[in-house]
Amino acid sequence: MIIVMCPNSTEEHLRKVEQKIERAGLSYHLSKGESRTIVGVIGDKKVIAELEMNSLEGVEKTVRITEKYKLVSREFQPEDTVVDVRGVKIGGGHLAVMAGPCAVESMEQLREAAAAVKKGGAQFLRGGAFKPRTSPYDFQGLAEEGLQMLQQVGQEYDLRVVTEIVDVNDVDMISQYADVLQVGARNMQNFRLLQAVGRSKRPVLLKRGLSATISEWLNAAEYIVSAGNENVILCERGIRTYETFTRNTLDLSAVAAVKELSHLPVVVDPSHGTGRWQMVRPMARAAIAAGADGLMIEVHPHPEVALSDGDQSLTPQHFELVMHEVKNIARAMERA
Amino acid sequence: MIIVMCPNSTEEHLRKVEQKIERAGLSYHLSKGESRTIVGVIGDKKVIAELEMNSLEGVEKTVRITEKYKLVSREFQPEDTVVDVRGVKIGGGHLAVMAGPCAVESMEQLREAAAAVKKGGAQFLRGGAFKPRTSPYDFQGLAEEGLQMLQQVGQEYDLRVVTEIVDVNDVDMISQYADVLQVGARNMQNFRLLQAVGRSKRPVLLKRGLSATISEWLNAAEYIVSAGNENVILCERGIRTYETFTRNTLDLSAVAAVKELSHLPVVVDPSHGTGRWQMVRPMARAAIAAGADGLMIEVHPHPEVALSDGDQSLTPQHFELVMHEVKNIARAMERA
Amino acid sequence: MIIVMCPNSTEEHLRKVEQKIERAGLSYHLSKGESRTIVGVIGDKKVIAELEMNSLEGVEKTVRITEKYKLVSREFQPEDTVVDVRGVKIGGGHLAVMAGPCAVESMEQLREAAAAVKKGGAQFLRGGAFKPRTSPYDFQGLAEEGLQMLQQVGQEYDLRVVTEIVDVNDVDMISQYADVLQVGARNMQNFRLLQAVGRSKRPVLLKRGLSATISEWLNAAEYIVSAGNENVILCERGIRTYETFTRNTLDLSAVAAVKELSHLPVVVDPSHGTGRWQMVRPMARAAIAAGADGLMIEVHPHPEVALSDGDQSLTPQHFELVMHEVKNIARAMERA
Amino acid sequence: MIIVMCPNSTEEHLRKVEQKIERAGLSYHLSKGESRTIVGVIGDKKVIAELEMNSLEGVEKTVRITEKYKLVSREFQPEDTVVDVRGVKIGGGHLAVMAGPCAVESMEQLREAAAAVKKGGAQFLRGGAFKPRTSPYDFQGLAEEGLQMLQQVGQEYDLRVVTEIVDVNDVDMISQYADVLQVGARNMQNFRLLQAVGRSKRPVLLKRGLSATISEWLNAAEYIVSAGNENVILCERGIRTYETFTRNTLDLSAVAAVKELSHLPVVVDPSHGTGRWQMVRPMARAAIAAGADGLMIEVHPHPEVALSDGDQSLTPQHFELVMHEVKNIARAMERA
Repeated sequence: MIIVMCPNSTEEHLRKVEQKIERAGLSYHLSKGESRTIVGVIGDKKVIAELEMNSLEGVEKTVRITEKYKLVSREFQPEDTVVDVRGVKIGGGHLAVMAGPCAVESMEQLREAAAAVKKGGAQFLRGGAFKPRTSPYDFQGLAEEGLQMLQQVGQEYDLRVVTEIVDVNDVDMISQYADVLQVGARNMQNFRLLQAVGRSKRPVLLKRGLSATISEWLNAAEYIVSAGNENVILCERGIRTYETFTRNTLDLSAVAAVKELSHLPVVVDPSHGTGRWQMVRPMARAAIAAGADGLMIEVHPHPEVALSDGDQSLTPQHFELVMHEVKNIARAMERA
Repeated sequence: MIIVMCPNSTEEHLRKVEQKIERAGLSYHLSKGESRTIVGVIGDKKVIAELEMNSLEGVEKTVRITEKYKLVSREFQPEDTVVDVRGVKIGGGHLAVMAGPCAVESMEQLREAAAAVKKGGAQFLRGGAFKPRTSPYDFQGLAEEGLQMLQQVGQEYDLRVVTEIVDVNDVDMISQYADVLQVGARNMQNFRLLQAVGRSKRPVLLKRGLSATISEWLNAAEYIVSAGNENVILCERGIRTYETFTRNTLDLSAVAAVKELSHLPVVVDPSHGTGRWQMVRPMARAAIAAGADGLMIEVHPHPEVALSDGDQSLTPQHFELVMHEVKNIARAMERA
Repeated sequence: MIIVMCPNSTEEHLRKVEQKIERAGLSYHLSKGESRTIVGVIGDKKVIAELEMNSLEGVEKTVRITEKYKLVSREFQPEDTVVDVRGVKIGGGHLAVMAGPCAVESMEQLREAAAAVKKGGAQFLRGGAFKPRTSPYDFQGLAEEGLQMLQQVGQEYDLRVVTEIVDVNDVDMISQYADVLQVGARNMQNFRLLQAVGRSKRPVLLKRGLSATISEWLNAAEYIVSAGNENVILCERGIRTYETFTRNTLDLSAVAAVKELSHLPVVVDPSHGTGRWQMVRPMARAAIAAGADGLMIEVHPHPEVALSDGDQSLTPQHFELVMHEVKNIARAMERA
Repeated sequence: MIIVMCPNSTEEHLRKVEQKIERAGLSYHLSKGESRTIVGVIGDKKVIAELEMNSLEGVEKTVRITEKYKLVSREFQPEDTVVDVRGVKIGGGHLAVMAGPCAVESMEQLREAAAAVKKGGAQFLRGGAFKPRTSPYDFQGLAEEGLQMLQQVGQEYDLRVVTEIVDVNDVDMISQYADVLQVGARNMQNFRLLQAVGRSKRPVLLKRGLSATISEWLNAAEYIVSAGNENVILCERGIRTYETFTRNTLDLSAVAAVKELSHLPVVVDPSHGTGRWQMVRPMARAAIAAGADGLMIEVHPHPEVALSDGDQSLTPQHFELVMHEVKNIARAMERA
């Protein structure tokens, strides 16, 4: 941590700063410049992480040098994490594709979607049984009945199942049916939920919050890993900006950033990331070109009758086209 | 809902749109303009709320005309809601002030803070026992022990107690100690938590999410009210923008907006809203001038040793000054 | 400037960093912590301002400690600047109000507006003759004819005239008619225009850019002052955020920030800041309570027929009400 | 335009709305729903574009259905525009690459950069002679001397020259030296500059503003085209968001959006778009995969001594690597 003293701070102010640092068991270096005195704090990273200095008189500002997360950082583990979901690998150069309807509606719908998903070459069936919806009056999902359908159809088509968890009390129940527990964007900083899935061994797909910084996202992942679960897959799904043409702004530079800062695999959801089915195709290609380890895509056999997010769902025909192009890009990058 | 057809859409496209509307039990008006055909959907608001039309061919875009929330809207209830917390009123022209430390640390700290809070004229003691922190390594709060302290000190100083709830399983437990359950910004769309506090009768302080629109915030309140709890107090606490000088951008126009759209009382938290103690004073004045029903302010007897958010906490001396000025503003607006 | 070295940087990397600093005529302090080596650069602020170190190998990031602007900083000049516009003062506790139509349309419109503006107690008549409009097909203003009207009506009602300049070649021409040259939000970083008005002696009202940071805004002011014109008035007019209920998000904390960082006066434009006439009243009160030196408000005798921005214009009746309340707030803060 | 009446609006309010529409020479359709009456305005698009209805009593809000731009829309011209720059084509499936230093510093620097640019396969040499810099104390460019160097080196290496224009008075002068006039992000809504380059025939590269919506960007292009210059190339260069890890957030979905809405070619600048040289490579690949017509990349022979933006400049070696990968992606998409 760097502490910048005010230009008019006194020797007494500086002494109090030094004392607080020493009381915390840390040491420091002083650097007296032309216009500012700067104090560099040295010592245990975790102790520094908790140090707060701005409220001391004479302090202009503080600058944190290191991130608080550790276990998820590439500094801690240089080689890529590869998450194994019953034999299907995510990370390390593999191309993982998760596809399916936003919400599970019926066996018929799910089977049609799964057939398309399988045919396109995806390895995962995604579908929501518990839907976090902005309004209490929107369709909230089929709950456990939906999970049973997912498991059944997943087995029929040999697809791994990804589904969202929204309640800390549901970890064991959902784990009976699903292979991957998805923590949605709205729950990225629901720390109790992060701890709960962290105590499980089930792989977790952690979506980036609507306006989460990359640092906050990795700290959220740290909650899961530090609770004991190393099987975390990050998922970029668009951030909130001033632009209204798209539902969110898909931040593909976050893929490159995460690859630099962390060893965790990262997939991209161009369906939520844009909110427009027409844009899923170019953004899916771009995601893979940016280095993403996979994709999460909404596919619905009949988007025009979907109970939620039909606007951003692909038809089976469009999905096949996307998969064809995505594989071409992956091949051009020397990945299968 | 307004459906805008593409300029090159066909009669067949239009027929499919009309059929889908009719199948949903709704009716429509057609308006054929020079460059676009527009379809206005008419009928039950809740049915329209669930209608999705963008995935139909020939549809350029849809525009929603009405909000999904109802019970919290001023259209539904024109007169202001006044929440009564054991005799202390929030809303309807009363000036409610909630103050205290970010986190409960010890009886000594809490008593000193409560004395200052009481002296300044606040009616509520705020303090966190369960802290949602960005990093798993930050101080997480004293848990139930902290709640006991809050209750005890609240009684000693005749202050109502406001504290944060982060777990759906904690409603009954926290309700034993606290008068108002606070739902934090990071949990504003933790819908399970909203439903849980909605089943309670305890007043709920609902903070605006870090990047929540006013519409999403009111829909979150609708979750609570529609579950049976009408005692909701909104709290503006700053939104996330590109500006980095302040921790958040305090959006005081949200106060005016909420007053226009809803009957619920709204308070402002200038401490989190700015993240800088120097700015609490002008922003507290401005909040009241904008029409807020009250304030939530961090006060710590010794901010320089605070375990969390010391940077934005006022000393008792500064708090007194703020209260003096805020009361002057309230008086100028003909409020006590 | 602080340079943070990568955890895996070598002695060779560090030597190159040191050499580059020395070649620039600067010196440095080294601070070797547990996880990072940090280099604090010391020396001439302007030389440091131009130093770029991120492209050197082994450098993780750099942190700038001081701002680049100087003349507009409170550090350079502790006492408030008071701008005198032919006897009317802006800054230093005075309450300056600028009001009038968005665009000058006719003598009749302008006279009616000026009468209302004067009656309400404003000292400045504002009106646009050159309008920067998003679309080339929108009304672009009456140009010099509009300026003549402004001057004429300003004289009739003893009001100072504020009008926008959009072309570097117009400084002399507009200065014949107007007392204050307004640089609009879209031109805040039109540096040629800033230099042009900086070479004039005419007071300049510098609006904050749509997504300008406070630092960029003050640097823009520095362009004007460093070119020789000290008469700069800042104007907060709302920033661009994800919220769509209001046209912009009025950032009143920017008022407090500017007061802390700079000696320049700052006024607030709640009309553009919200884009909704209903919100001008509460936001005008809040602006003054936050410490603003004045207001800029759109007033149109007949907003329903206005050629631009009628949505955010007050009627004369509403303007009087706003002025009454604003003066009450100013009085409560012990200002006339 | 759709006008939504308040739930409590009267027949009188509605009549005034109807009258204003009729006075403007437009007609309307009425749609009376359960909770709202909606008025659809029909008639000449340009007249509707200027209609303002929000200030009428009883009006809740208005929704614009069509964009104001016309000439740049795909609706107006379905086939792609291909801009020809002395034989080099931009748009229509061609891959155009513009590369070079942020600022022209010397003949030596420029020649080294041009050699690398040419070797990598780019067709355009970019370099700034007039630099719009945030602070008046930053390096402002070599002015006309820099232009002469650009022209000279461009001829030596058979590269077309792209350079930024910042002053309305410079069109003729710069056109003597450069093939493409670049309008920078900070000047995207400097409408006088847009009109000035619109009166030229020289191709214009129009960068997206720091926080410009796609609609505003296309309206800015409309200014140029409607002034007579059809040779407009759009350039996405990152938008301003809350994320601080990158300098800007590169919005690749804007590429797909522009391809849908407009016939103009669009290139991507991953150097400014990320501000970090390490991210240029993945983002350049992603841009082409998203469908961009080309790239603008900063290349400096010695980034560590660059006078501006060294942090985001590639070395010649890195540039070659990027070009190799980008061509692979283009090939995978069946483009040369």
